[in-house]
Amino acid sequence: MISVVILGAGNVATHLFKAFNKTNEVSVIQWYNRTLDKLKPYSKQVNTCDNLDDLVDADLYILTVSDDSIAELSSKLPFEDKLVVHTSGSVGVYDLDKKHKRGVLYPLQTFSKDADVDFANVPICIETIDKKSYPLLKKVAVSLGSPTKRVNSDQRRTLHLAAVYVNNFTNQLYRIAHEITESEGAEFDMLKPLILETAKKVQDMSPYMAQTGPAKRNDKKTINAHLKLLEKQEHKDIYKLLTKSIQNTHGRKKL
Amino acid sequence: MISVVILGAGNVATHLFKAFNKTNEVSVIQWYNRTLDKLKPYSKQVNTCDNLDDLVDADLYILTVSDDSIAELSSKLPFEDKLVVHTSGSVGVYDLDKKHKRGVLYPLQTFSKDADVDFANVPICIETIDKKSYPLLKKVAVSLGSPTKRVNSDQRRTLHLAAVYVNNFTNQLYRIAHEITESEGAEFDMLKPLILETAKKVQDMSPYMAQTGPAKRNDKKTINAHLKLLEKQEHKDIYKLLTKSIQNTHGRKKL
Repeated sequence: MISVVILGAGNVATHLFKAFNKTNEVSVIQWYNRTLDKLKPYSKQVNTCDNLDDLVDADLYILTVSDDSIAELSSKLPFEDKLVVHTSGSVGVYDLDKKHKRGVLYPLQTFSKDADVDFANVPICIETIDKKSYPLLKKVAVSLGSPTKRVNSDQRRTLHLAAVYVNNFTNQLYRIAHEITESEGAEFDMLKPLILETAKKVQDMSPYMAQTGPAKRNDKKTINAHLKLLEKQEHKDIYKLLTKSIQNTHGRKKL
Repeated sequence: MISVVILGAGNVATHLFKAFNKTNEVSVIQWYNRTLDKLKPYSKQVNTCDNLDDLVDADLYILTVSDDSIAELSSKLPFEDKLVVHTSGSVGVYDLDKKHKRGVLYPLQTFSKDADVDFANVPICIETIDKKSYPLLKKVAVSLGSPTKRVNSDQRRTLHLAAVYVNNFTNQLYRIAHEITESEGAEFDMLKPLILETAKKVQDMSPYMAQTGPAKRNDKKTINAHLKLLEKQEHKDIYKLLTKSIQNTHGRKKL
């Protein structure tokens, strides 16, 4: 049994705690947070604490705090030579204090507070400085049922950046579609099956092959009609820039 | 039994033909195309023809030809006062020749040539000029198992425009993520569960509520690190514009 201490009390911490509790390979023996209030709902299931001096001995310490707090918290830990990892996509592994064995467990997924998480759908990127720490982290990730991949810090940063495109930016395109349809009394709900199908399509096909539409066809009549229909300048600018991008990808003439 | 003639031999025509063949309410009695070669695989299942003078009498004629060909084909049809519809998102219902009863059946979905289509996931927007034609079109759409919605031409054009954002533009963001990850030796495959989850999230939650990430948090450190990491100017421009758009939506300060 691998003993784990979780530090932090955000979404990632909560989902990890719940998921580890269902495994036979990992036991969360302590949960630390700066303040105990967020941990109260779990205080009967696990030893909780808000004082770093009370931390118990464990095989692995998982820091799930905000990016800006990782370096400081790791240096404040009152022990050394233990395996300490963070879960951030953009913080380097060397930002952890060098008195520890250092690593990263980066879950490449969006976590909502309330929705249940199936870790089979959460790829975990693993990074370690010393090779000996890798098998333990791999075992921890596999115990959750997650697909795993060993990556270096550059690759992890790149995945985090790419995740902004496919998650935050894509979601903003959904938002714009919501604005456009509502302003005309059309229903955003009508677009939901298309949203899902667009995401499903690239599970088996490259985005390059999956592309269709007026930009790819260089259908100027439709493109110009769409630009005329758009009321907000921002929506026009995004339409033009992404149309140009599709045409650059597919070798079409520009607008 | 509603008798239907399909005109055109693209993806929409083929998927409609296959789907109608499974219903008990609709019978495709003839399939027309300019040339017979594309219809050959179906010539034993249905009467095929390439001459408009050979068209048989039917309750409904569905024009699935390209946007630019709809008006001309409708005027060439050698009959009048029959119900003639097209399936385009952006062509007006009045573009059909006025000698016909006119309508639109617009399936709001992306069709691939090879993939099977479940019409339960294909909302169909219905438009008719005279009210009497509506019940028949509704019955045809419902026979496919599709959700239906009566819309006017403005609403249909708006849905078609919004579909470009959630389908073509979203797919281009996937493409950019593919480019970014591949150039760093990271795997695009790692992003696939996130792509799917992002689409699933807005099935039950508004895109506004679903938003997360550095732009919404106004996390300048991460935003600047990402801009530095991006090599292509086009990728930087899209990052900046969509970050600004998220910040406008969520009332954050600009970059």
